[in-house]
Amino acid sequence: MRPTGRLHIGHLSVIENWIRLQEDYDCVFGIVDWHALTTSFDEVEALQQRIREIALDWLSAGLDPEKSPIMVQSQVKEHAELHLLFSMMTPLSWLERVPTYKDQLQQFGAKGKDISMYGFLGYPLLMAADILIYRATHVPVGLDQVPHIELAREVARRFNHLYQTEIFPEPKDILSEVPMLPGIDNRKMSKSYGNDIPLSASAEEIKEKVRLMVTDPGRVRKTDLGNPDVCVVHVYHKIYNNGEVADIGDQCRKAGIGCVACKQRLAAKLEAILGPIRERRATLLDKPNRVDEILADGCLQARAKTAETMELVREAMGVRGVMD
Amino acid sequence: MRPTGRLHIGHLSVIENWIRLQEDYDCVFGIVDWHALTTSFDEVEALQQRIREIALDWLSAGLDPEKSPIMVQSQVKEHAELHLLFSMMTPLSWLERVPTYKDQLQQFGAKGKDISMYGFLGYPLLMAADILIYRATHVPVGLDQVPHIELAREVARRFNHLYQTEIFPEPKDILSEVPMLPGIDNRKMSKSYGNDIPLSASAEEIKEKVRLMVTDPGRVRKTDLGNPDVCVVHVYHKIYNNGEVADIGDQCRKAGIGCVACKQRLAAKLEAILGPIRERRATLLDKPNRVDEILADGCLQARAKTAETMELVREAMGVRGVMD
Repeated sequence: MRPTGRLHIGHLSVIENWIRLQEDYDCVFGIVDWHALTTSFDEVEALQQRIREIALDWLSAGLDPEKSPIMVQSQVKEHAELHLLFSMMTPLSWLERVPTYKDQLQQFGAKGKDISMYGFLGYPLLMAADILIYRATHVPVGLDQVPHIELAREVARRFNHLYQTEIFPEPKDILSEVPMLPGIDNRKMSKSYGNDIPLSASAEEIKEKVRLMVTDPGRVRKTDLGNPDVCVVHVYHKIYNNGEVADIGDQCRKAGIGCVACKQRLAAKLEAILGPIRERRATLLDKPNRVDEILADGCLQARAKTAETMELVREAMGVRGVMD
Repeated sequence: MRPTGRLHIGHLSVIENWIRLQEDYDCVFGIVDWHALTTSFDEVEALQQRIREIALDWLSAGLDPEKSPIMVQSQVKEHAELHLLFSMMTPLSWLERVPTYKDQLQQFGAKGKDISMYGFLGYPLLMAADILIYRATHVPVGLDQVPHIELAREVARRFNHLYQTEIFPEPKDILSEVPMLPGIDNRKMSKSYGNDIPLSASAEEIKEKVRLMVTDPGRVRKTDLGNPDVCVVHVYHKIYNNGEVADIGDQCRKAGIGCVACKQRLAAKLEAILGPIRERRATLLDKPNRVDEILADGCLQARAKTAETMELVREAMGVRGVMD
């Protein structure tokens, strides 16, 4: 994940998915700060802070560094070396054809930002290096990332073929169904819109955010019949209050429950989810260097894994030299 | 210099130029094996051997590792990291416009080899990293490399501007006049044509190569008048026998000297140049690991320099993290 800064409740299902994967797989989780530079090379001031915030969110949400290392990409230099070595044998056209490439150029261009840099073109190849350097067999991703995993497979195949080796398995994507959680104003949830519920929200903040959630605009008075299908609060009940959502919906339609009460019930549910996260965060923050220590340890573990792969790669490509 | 394997007498003037520069500058000389992969990613078998051969040639020719480190690019990983970081802020169009780019694609294409890889496009940027990582002020190059030094200057300027720093001086090229030495058959001198005189040639090999040199085809008998202007031997006399060349030319024109004697005089001059090189080579080869030790020591020195630059670069780009 890129270090975008503090996470919100919309990210939680991804991390919960990772926590499940930790039980069955030998995982590595990475904060890919070099990737952040592909589009934000000119806004680097807060990068270190964002790395620590996202790590704190992961840990608070329950990711267990005892089970899987959490690494920071820029601290495991082998990723850069493998990216460079891959670049020598990866056709330019493979990168030009990645579907997100021209889309993103246009989207950023429309916002007046030119990201047509050499490194932005190579971004999926850096991602391939991030994956293959751990000789990963599986990568949990969203639908938009599937073409990148396909590229990683192609790079693995080409490398193995060119150097007559079996260093790299071809990684498969693990697609997880992630519910689309709207922001409290029913737009896409985003920190930058201010319509999100941070993972680190206080009990007061949760109540306030839920209080501000957009409901059925046709229901002005409590006695008006409501339509839960156009109500943000109801979307949240569906996800976080599955046991009560049918009843709450019925009550809303016949004006049996008011918006205030409906929101209180949601806020209680969200507090039940975010409360324990908040507590773990407080425990982590009790020890000032705890997060840095966890990251440093994760990077050390990651380096041990990547060093092993790189020995094989250097040997295969004829660049295992006097100092390796 | 790329590790192309053993050098020939045509390379000597470049190295002699380096030896002069060693006296006035704080130099780093590099064997850039990653660069070799941009066009030879599929022919890597002999790469390590070629690295050692070129190092042995440099040292035999008189390059002094006590004065300047000799490093191997792949052994100083910081080059890969800086290349990656530069890639984030270097416009793709800068690389697409490098004059050698399309030329080389075509030249290799004509030989049936597709080198349109991502890394081949990025080759001048890797070279910029090779230069700037030592915060070099000057780079000795041939005319064909001048656009690459210009790119390195542009990258330095853009980096310094974006991150409001003065980390990188803008490097200047030191253009050296290198006499074009023909092969013994008057084509371009090249190991692959077999028309070269290796730096490591034995006394016998020198005599034999000079014996085979193409002379004035109009002069069949010793009594025929010769035309030194179309004679390869004469080109060599101009370069290596400046004191006698005028006289030898005169004698040739009036059939006062035969080709055999003319060639013997050249062979003696070449022996005077290559003999001491051969002796230094023998001394180096006396100690089996001497070259590897010199390279390892050069890489260590290079790492100390690059580590310093990278600290500044990481700080500037916001990626100086928990392990740096």
